[in-house]
Amino acid sequence: MSDWSSFLANEQDRFLSELMEFVKIPSVSASSEFASDVVDAANWVAQRITQAGGENVEVMQTGGHPCVYADWMHAGDNKPTILIYGHFDVQPAEPYELWDTPPFDPNVRDDKIFGRGASDDKGGMLIPIISFEAFKKTSGKLPINIKFLFEGQEEIGSPQLPEFVAAHRNKLSCDMIFSSDGLQWTADEPNLVTGLKGLVGAEIKVVGPITDQHSGLHGGAIANPLMALSQLVSSMKDRNGKITINGFYDDVEDLTEEDRNDIARVPYDEEAYKEELKVDKLHGEEGYSTRERLWARPTLDVNGIFGGYQGMGSKTVHPSEASVKITCRLVSDQNPEIIYDLICKHVEENLPVGVKSEVKRLAGSADPFVMPRSHNANQVAREVLQEVYEMDPYVTRLGGSIPIMTIFLKELGVYGTMFGFSVGDENLHAPNEFFRLKNFRRGQEAYCKLFERLSEKSFN
Amino acid sequence: MSDWSSFLANEQDRFLSELMEFVKIPSVSASSEFASDVVDAANWVAQRITQAGGENVEVMQTGGHPCVYADWMHAGDNKPTILIYGHFDVQPAEPYELWDTPPFDPNVRDDKIFGRGASDDKGGMLIPIISFEAFKKTSGKLPINIKFLFEGQEEIGSPQLPEFVAAHRNKLSCDMIFSSDGLQWTADEPNLVTGLKGLVGAEIKVVGPITDQHSGLHGGAIANPLMALSQLVSSMKDRNGKITINGFYDDVEDLTEEDRNDIARVPYDEEAYKEELKVDKLHGEEGYSTRERLWARPTLDVNGIFGGYQGMGSKTVHPSEASVKITCRLVSDQNPEIIYDLICKHVEENLPVGVKSEVKRLAGSADPFVMPRSHNANQVAREVLQEVYEMDPYVTRLGGSIPIMTIFLKELGVYGTMFGFSVGDENLHAPNEFFRLKNFRRGQEAYCKLFERLSEKSFN
Repeated sequence: MSDWSSFLANEQDRFLSELMEFVKIPSVSASSEFASDVVDAANWVAQRITQAGGENVEVMQTGGHPCVYADWMHAGDNKPTILIYGHFDVQPAEPYELWDTPPFDPNVRDDKIFGRGASDDKGGMLIPIISFEAFKKTSGKLPINIKFLFEGQEEIGSPQLPEFVAAHRNKLSCDMIFSSDGLQWTADEPNLVTGLKGLVGAEIKVVGPITDQHSGLHGGAIANPLMALSQLVSSMKDRNGKITINGFYDDVEDLTEEDRNDIARVPYDEEAYKEELKVDKLHGEEGYSTRERLWARPTLDVNGIFGGYQGMGSKTVHPSEASVKITCRLVSDQNPEIIYDLICKHVEENLPVGVKSEVKRLAGSADPFVMPRSHNANQVAREVLQEVYEMDPYVTRLGGSIPIMTIFLKELGVYGTMFGFSVGDENLHAPNEFFRLKNFRRGQEAYCKLFERLSEKSFN
Repeated sequence: MSDWSSFLANEQDRFLSELMEFVKIPSVSASSEFASDVVDAANWVAQRITQAGGENVEVMQTGGHPCVYADWMHAGDNKPTILIYGHFDVQPAEPYELWDTPPFDPNVRDDKIFGRGASDDKGGMLIPIISFEAFKKTSGKLPINIKFLFEGQEEIGSPQLPEFVAAHRNKLSCDMIFSSDGLQWTADEPNLVTGLKGLVGAEIKVVGPITDQHSGLHGGAIANPLMALSQLVSSMKDRNGKITINGFYDDVEDLTEEDRNDIARVPYDEEAYKEELKVDKLHGEEGYSTRERLWARPTLDVNGIFGGYQGMGSKTVHPSEASVKITCRLVSDQNPEIIYDLICKHVEENLPVGVKSEVKRLAGSADPFVMPRSHNANQVAREVLQEVYEMDPYVTRLGGSIPIMTIFLKELGVYGTMFGFSVGDENLHAPNEFFRLKNFRRGQEAYCKLFERLSEKSFN
């Protein structure tokens, strides 16, 4: 038994008490009422890393909720420097009455800890601190150089993080990034997320006559902006789910056989999925499986459409204008700027006669993020997961976008690897959030193994 | 000079005082605050017809605002019986501050009377009562049999009239109907409206997943109801303005050469029309002029569309459902029931994969109304207008629907002829409504001539 392994085995009671103490701090970032609790959580984290042996520990101001930085950089220049990311803010706990035990008075039952933030991400982010401590307290050092960055605004979309990371590029520079905020596939099946989609959005307004008109007096004489908008929107996608904006797929790399195999390997109950969403049929781009479409193909979604009369019953109005909001999820080398330009061009070229259009960009842009298959951090993570779960992890992608990952890639030039031990069924943003203590312990072991394996590789 | 002619010439001051007295009654049908004023107006009308020599004068209950009935049926069986229609309720007068003189304190300037209802339809409906009086007071009789039906709920869509007319079919039976509520083309150019469009409406809901979903987690896997709705709506009309619902045009008679000539004869400044609506281009069904489309071709208008996120900025939601409201204006023999069924069938056959649909009928149905070109009432009206305006009237149709006309046609089997003397520029539903006294007088003469001419024809 390694030293760290005995240390972990002996100290679990303390770690659990610490996690309970941490969860007790109601660090809800979304509500100003809890702003000082977010600061308390930052101070708690800073103190905890200090206690573990971290150096240069600092609660850093961002203009919003703070970040906590710490490092230990004495492994030597020939060892990699890794940055560990996580967040100490939590989702609001409402509705309180649906919790079986109070959200900020954590409760342990069935080897699970219940409480807001237990899984997302307080349990998650405490894990690498503990693993760090296990090395530090048993051998006085770490096998790698390590930096910690924990933030307090993840649950509100990290508004100050892009600027913060850019401003501290040197301080945060590293060879690899591991995010403690992440999911495994199930309680006992590991998962490696290798791709996130990018995002770009546009709001398109179609404008007809100067004000709403009487449909009897003007209908048929002038173009109807709602009909024109429908025609325009439907010109963007055919009935087989193919996006028909010129050039849209130009920078999309097709899936390799290996990609397709990885995806097909992940268990998937299509009937259960249909039942969950209450749809009779799944539908999307022809030629791809549902999972391939979700994880690895770009999409164009209509998020909202509106114009004219929306009240009860009938109003024979010929509306003045109509609008639509669309967002595209991007993959491979698709670039939000280029896709936005293609949308504008499509609108210009496909606008029905007799109406004008206005297109504006929606906030919330992100580049697609696909970690190269052979990326070394990925390889190591995969080996460690294989070892601690005793099965090869599924390799999946997410249809969504995680801004912090693209921020790191853009500002630090480093891909982040999601290396967290929560599970999607742990009520992450819902009442009765919980974290499996089995995975709290397994995560500690996994991070220790990760540190060891990383030190064995040469990254120069 | 005929007797009625001298009578009219001598009594104009009294008629104007009466009209001012009538306009003073704020008989706004839309507001319950004025309900007793609508009753006052009914009583005023009943008293005025009695004074003119009408018989069987009665304020009749409808369940809503009342009607006034009167008749004089002693011209003999070989003379036609005509029914004269009009309304004594008025539009609301708000915003009061935009009136130069108070809406219910009528003011005469430049040979015009200003006040709410002066033109629509108090001035208009007083005209045939005066013409009736002119005959009655000078020769003791009328050259034709006459019935009056004036209502108090036209401005709120005559909700009780269909039932009322059906319940009094015998009392209201007649050979011809003339509506005192109607427009001439300009102050000095006459107009004969020979067609009104029918109306049918549907609300179509397209339903996807059970609730709104995260577009990153489900976009591309399931059909998007907003995209599906856009595809469905755009499948109803091509980009040349042709409605592509199967069978939609089956009961539309194409325009005759004569119809087209009538329409082309009416002065029309297309540039001014575009400027008025602030559109760069007019657009509608290919192969027809703007006026032909407006007056004599069926239309399909999208009145409202809505679904998903309509707020500021972006929300990456995959919406659960979306709806559209459409109305069709019908012509010729198009039947609202049949057209509604065709819409339902179209939705069923053209619904994109992966969504469900719900269609419901909207209130506000009407049959198209096109008076046969050779209809005798029309012919007589045309001759009279030619005489009093010294020019042949334009023959036009309206893109809108006037429910009372279709109610009469349906319940009494008689086409109504619009024979009113207002002009579209008289601020009918706006502040500073006015009525030209020149046309108040011209209308009296026109109705007298109409009575005379009708008595010369044989209608048995």
